[in-house]
Amino acid sequence: MNNNKNISMKEIAELSGVSVATVSRVINNNGRFSEDTRKKVMDIIKEYDYTINMAAKSLRVSTSKTIGIIVPDINNEFFSEIVLEIEKFFFTNGYSVFICNTSQDDMKEREYFRSLDSKLVDGIICISGREDIPVDSIKRKIPIVCIDRKPKYDSSAIYVESDHYLGGFMATEELIKKGCKHILILTKSKSLSVNKQRLDGYTDALKKHNHPIDDKLIVKLSGNRSNFEESRDAINYLLKKGIAFDGIFASNDWRAYGALVALNQNQIPVPEKVKIVGFDGISVSKYCYPAITTIYQDKKNLALEAADLLLSLIEGKNINSSQHIVIPVSLIERGTT
Amino acid sequence: MNNNKNISMKEIAELSGVSVATVSRVINNNGRFSEDTRKKVMDIIKEYDYTINMAAKSLRVSTSKTIGIIVPDINNEFFSEIVLEIEKFFFTNGYSVFICNTSQDDMKEREYFRSLDSKLVDGIICISGREDIPVDSIKRKIPIVCIDRKPKYDSSAIYVESDHYLGGFMATEELIKKGCKHILILTKSKSLSVNKQRLDGYTDALKKHNHPIDDKLIVKLSGNRSNFEESRDAINYLLKKGIAFDGIFASNDWRAYGALVALNQNQIPVPEKVKIVGFDGISVSKYCYPAITTIYQDKKNLALEAADLLLSLIEGKNINSSQHIVIPVSLIERGTT
Repeated sequence: MNNNKNISMKEIAELSGVSVATVSRVINNNGRFSEDTRKKVMDIIKEYDYTINMAAKSLRVSTSKTIGIIVPDINNEFFSEIVLEIEKFFFTNGYSVFICNTSQDDMKEREYFRSLDSKLVDGIICISGREDIPVDSIKRKIPIVCIDRKPKYDSSAIYVESDHYLGGFMATEELIKKGCKHILILTKSKSLSVNKQRLDGYTDALKKHNHPIDDKLIVKLSGNRSNFEESRDAINYLLKKGIAFDGIFASNDWRAYGALVALNQNQIPVPEKVKIVGFDGISVSKYCYPAITTIYQDKKNLALEAADLLLSLIEGKNINSSQHIVIPVSLIERGTT
Repeated sequence: MNNNKNISMKEIAELSGVSVATVSRVINNNGRFSEDTRKKVMDIIKEYDYTINMAAKSLRVSTSKTIGIIVPDINNEFFSEIVLEIEKFFFTNGYSVFICNTSQDDMKEREYFRSLDSKLVDGIICISGREDIPVDSIKRKIPIVCIDRKPKYDSSAIYVESDHYLGGFMATEELIKKGCKHILILTKSKSLSVNKQRLDGYTDALKKHNHPIDDKLIVKLSGNRSNFEESRDAINYLLKKGIAFDGIFASNDWRAYGALVALNQNQIPVPEKVKIVGFDGISVSKYCYPAITTIYQDKKNLALEAADLLLSLIEGKNINSSQHIVIPVSLIERGTT
């Protein structure tokens, strides 16, 4: 039977004692298989001089078993934890995961959409960022699931996010309950859906408790430097200008920590004179002193909901559930309130 | 001239007022170009009904303008900072960067080498991990540069690392100078070159100062749980067993922080009763209380040296410099010594 070029993948599978799917994975060098399996299959292929029909192959293999993740900043633990959960999920399901970091640069994001598409990924998870997805960078029709980003590109767009509005509301109400009268919000100038929702939560909590909304206390950071530095410098600036405040709702934990350091530097005791609530629930909020009260986002749940949705879409399953999944947040009370 | 299929890339370039290289990038949907440029080029292509000769194309395009990074844990700031520096460098040079997280799983690492190779990346940077590179997973001959990993696979292997030996020596000597007599090392059971070198530095510093080497004080953590937890639990265990020590050299900052927390839980004052030195110089060492004395690794320099080497190799330049670059480390003295 040597040199019989008509051996089929099915026969290779039988001769090497593995499934046809495994033979396909070995031939395509794609997906999971052990070194042993690879050797077994390749030996049979060599023995029978099997010639891989490349045209037939590309017809048979409809997916590349890879997905891409677009993330603004993997150096931020909030994002890196989500990315790792997604990676774990997809790897277990036989997919390789390519992580692309955009540093919140729209041009870069566009470029990464383009290059993931040109690498034939089967789907993309896109975390945070602007509302519009650069669909013109993607030539194929592949599923995209967003986390913490309300996509505009498609009426049937699918996204998973924390309850940012409620988070903003709860953070502000916590400060009001602890007696704060002049509550500052440290947010970002960039118009992202998450920032808008948290700001809405802040203003609605103030209204509910009959606190005036003071534009001087809505501080929008540029995002050009690190969250920590921008926030620390903003608080120093406000103190110098003599703007009075006794509560700070920082829209992420690094901003909260920046504020805490600035108050320490100015000998303003926390929580006695000024109280702080952060957002995200990452380690810095737990490990600094005093530990920071924060709104906890359930990163694992966010990741798994998004990953599960994307996999279903890739596999062509009907998505019966809602196209917009909201994950609850919770308040963790610590030393700064 | 409509429907003239013989128009060349050079003519397209002239007609759209851009370079041939730019036309190539647009056609291949690869590398940098503006939306305007894309439109200009595509309009000319449509106008003249240019048919892309795919075979000729793949001959002309020798690189895919993508690189891969294999990283053990992007949730560790030490790694994520290096990855971000490399990404920035390559993006500026017109490359997309695919980050692959292995969670220190050898099978996963092997799989990511394979899938990066199948996506035709032009080169790979590989951070930390075992000494052997799974070369059998890579079918093409592409350059690989390692960081903090001494590769075995090739006598001409190129790697960049911190001076781990000196770091281990300096950390131990700092503890000796501050009066410690029984110095514990918290290291890892996995045989990685960086661990070996730091351990060698530790034993040599003890020998130099005529301190005995006590096997009970060489604690090898399994790496199955987080650095923080393993280290915290190991110190609790040693305290329960009544093993005496007055200094801890923790081979990374999360382990140092875990040790600090365990000592706090046991009401053992730091640095009065036990002193601690960490390794890496990441934020946790700076932000915890007391802040941790540590051996600082120059992450930016490590990243840029490795990235620059890889780019030179991809571009086929002669590498005249040493194949093994060692970046100096430094001691940052803080509250724990």
